[in-house]
Amino acid sequence: MMVKLFFFIFLFHLTFIRSKTKHYKMKIITVQAPVNIAVIKYWGKKDENLIIPLNDSISGTLSMDHLCATTSIAFSNEFDSNRMWLNGVEVKIDDNKRLVRCIENVRKLAESTVGWPSNHYIRICSRNNFPTAAGLASSAAGYACLCYALCKLFEINDPYIISSLARLGSGSACRSIYGGIVRWIAGYDHQTSIARQVITENEWPEIRIFVCVVSDHRKDTSSTSGMQLSCQTSSLIKYRAENVVPDHCDQIQKAINERNFDKFAEITMKDSNQFHAICQDTYPPIRYMNDTSWSIVNLIHFINHSFGHNVACYTFDAGPNACIYCLDNHAPILIKSIRRMYQKNDGTELEIKGITYQTDQIVIDQKINDYIDSRKQNAEDLKYIISTRLGSGPKILTNQFDSNCLLLDNGLPKN
Amino acid sequence: MMVKLFFFIFLFHLTFIRSKTKHYKMKIITVQAPVNIAVIKYWGKKDENLIIPLNDSISGTLSMDHLCATTSIAFSNEFDSNRMWLNGVEVKIDDNKRLVRCIENVRKLAESTVGWPSNHYIRICSRNNFPTAAGLASSAAGYACLCYALCKLFEINDPYIISSLARLGSGSACRSIYGGIVRWIAGYDHQTSIARQVITENEWPEIRIFVCVVSDHRKDTSSTSGMQLSCQTSSLIKYRAENVVPDHCDQIQKAINERNFDKFAEITMKDSNQFHAICQDTYPPIRYMNDTSWSIVNLIHFINHSFGHNVACYTFDAGPNACIYCLDNHAPILIKSIRRMYQKNDGTELEIKGITYQTDQIVIDQKINDYIDSRKQNAEDLKYIISTRLGSGPKILTNQFDSNCLLLDNGLPKN
Repeated sequence: MMVKLFFFIFLFHLTFIRSKTKHYKMKIITVQAPVNIAVIKYWGKKDENLIIPLNDSISGTLSMDHLCATTSIAFSNEFDSNRMWLNGVEVKIDDNKRLVRCIENVRKLAESTVGWPSNHYIRICSRNNFPTAAGLASSAAGYACLCYALCKLFEINDPYIISSLARLGSGSACRSIYGGIVRWIAGYDHQTSIARQVITENEWPEIRIFVCVVSDHRKDTSSTSGMQLSCQTSSLIKYRAENVVPDHCDQIQKAINERNFDKFAEITMKDSNQFHAICQDTYPPIRYMNDTSWSIVNLIHFINHSFGHNVACYTFDAGPNACIYCLDNHAPILIKSIRRMYQKNDGTELEIKGITYQTDQIVIDQKINDYIDSRKQNAEDLKYIISTRLGSGPKILTNQFDSNCLLLDNGLPKN
Repeated sequence: MMVKLFFFIFLFHLTFIRSKTKHYKMKIITVQAPVNIAVIKYWGKKDENLIIPLNDSISGTLSMDHLCATTSIAFSNEFDSNRMWLNGVEVKIDDNKRLVRCIENVRKLAESTVGWPSNHYIRICSRNNFPTAAGLASSAAGYACLCYALCKLFEINDPYIISSLARLGSGSACRSIYGGIVRWIAGYDHQTSIARQVITENEWPEIRIFVCVVSDHRKDTSSTSGMQLSCQTSSLIKYRAENVVPDHCDQIQKAINERNFDKFAEITMKDSNQFHAICQDTYPPIRYMNDTSWSIVNLIHFINHSFGHNVACYTFDAGPNACIYCLDNHAPILIKSIRRMYQKNDGTELEIKGITYQTDQIVIDQKINDYIDSRKQNAEDLKYIISTRLGSGPKILTNQFDSNCLLLDNGLPKN
């Protein structure tokens, strides 16, 4: 029913945008788009080409104050070619199949509406405001930003269409088109596999998120090849997708609607654990969580056990970094506990980027203190924490070649 | 059909042993029993009290030259109580439910056959020849040894009965009643849940086993409580037991019968991985493998990939220690590779206990060498390797108070 509804909206939109056509010489747009961190995980595709996932997934969109991608796109008959720069380095568009697919799909839509003259080329310049080495969901923010910017440039405004186009770049990018908490409905084809908002960031403003950036120089297995291998070799992945994830989605949506953090945390942890179980059930096995990741898992469970209910939960993407969800009232105790666990011998505190908390007056329960003392970790194994909250979906920064724009009016990147 | 057959054998045996009765004042026996390492894992019980597992499991019995338990049991009217010493420390028999259950079940059988006079008590003294801190299957060897010795003392000789009695002490102990490769048939009650031999140690004599003892001071979750928690909380364990393990058992038995090491290794690794996946899918998640365990997993897969087929496989029990199975022709290259990976900066080599190999002339392929160089581990993370082979089932060392006996004729332990 829901799927049919989206399809009709899509058809309606196509008809609507077909009715207007424009021509112009030069356009410019600069957009910011957020990172999202899944609480119900996307792992495995039904369709590799269209990036149709095995199961629905649900994520929180992080505030762009602390993590975001910024992309400027200029379109003009004064350029002689399509070119792109990512974090200061030129990348060959044609070498990246997914990038080409996104641009070509927007072009097809644009041609039939506002037009894409054959003598016009685009210039793209994109940057992240967070370290790419952090192993965070940079491709989600990046493709959401690119597709949102391209669509807005060509006056394609339907979020479902933008979401499905972003999906063609990187599956989880389709979720970064909305703020708050977002569900990607697996669907069965390009039009039906789209994300939609569950709640806005203002509907559960107490949520806090800590991204614990774990030192890790290598990522042995990319997400794309990892999920392919899981689909081919795990005897449990299909059972998970068909029998467990639907329950997880239902339960967590109910918990979100009821603002039941205890249950939200339980399902989040269970789903993260099961995703990594599927990785381990892959052949050869895939492993993203290391000893540091596990030290955080165990600490969170110990703290929750001490409180008698879940005051925090962890979730791990395809990497060793822990993402901790909690409510604002427990943020200081969590920050203080993790800092103590990773304190350097000289007393230097772990760096917190983003939202800071006053923790001087916070007293950690003796049992938790004893636990931390007995499991002290190497300080250098945790680099820093990005402390943030839920945030909005993408936004347009400017339509001018001004200080917010990453491109010069000759179509080359600044610096 | 098979299960029915075992049941008739059991009934026959009961009838047979009921026909003879004896009385005596003093008896002594000293027995050695082996450790076994599962290649298809036992995890989770259908019946907690009788230790009936969720699924069949298959293991290799290790040579008693390198790992074994030794137990002396004396039975006499000159003793005033039942007492027991384990690795030099007296343990209270009544405090250990499983120990009591084993002894009581043997007593019941003995009473109706050779007799167990009410004024007779037993003295038990047991030792392992391997470090208990190693986190190896010491309870399997220990209970196999205890039950084998008790049964032999009371002339109970049917291996199926001994196997089922050992199971009451520690599930996997039922497999240590046989040498070679052994399958524990899950069954449905005390009589049907027994182990039987798949092949003797002489039928595949080329098999070699390396127990890599990883430094680890804590074991956070005992096997017993861990498997209970998995049964209660993992949404995947039932699917594994019902749908995956039967295939793994069939495939590995076929591979064993065909002496197909490549396939044997594949199924062994897949089953170990899936067992740890189930642990991860438990809530809170259980984790036995640490960064060191994973460094060995990745090394084995890299070596196998270089050879183009599986020359070795790893399997992990409920702990961080890797058990590597290989054939004798590949033992030197494996030993040399692991030693290189864990070589100290001063060049000191990792200690190998048990079977040694001449590795001076062994040349490691350049690609494997480069891999090892790029993933060098901390030498202290791997303590030593026990190098062994498949071995026989339990054996009687002596029926005298001689040098092999651990007890003095006054029923007290030596030293």
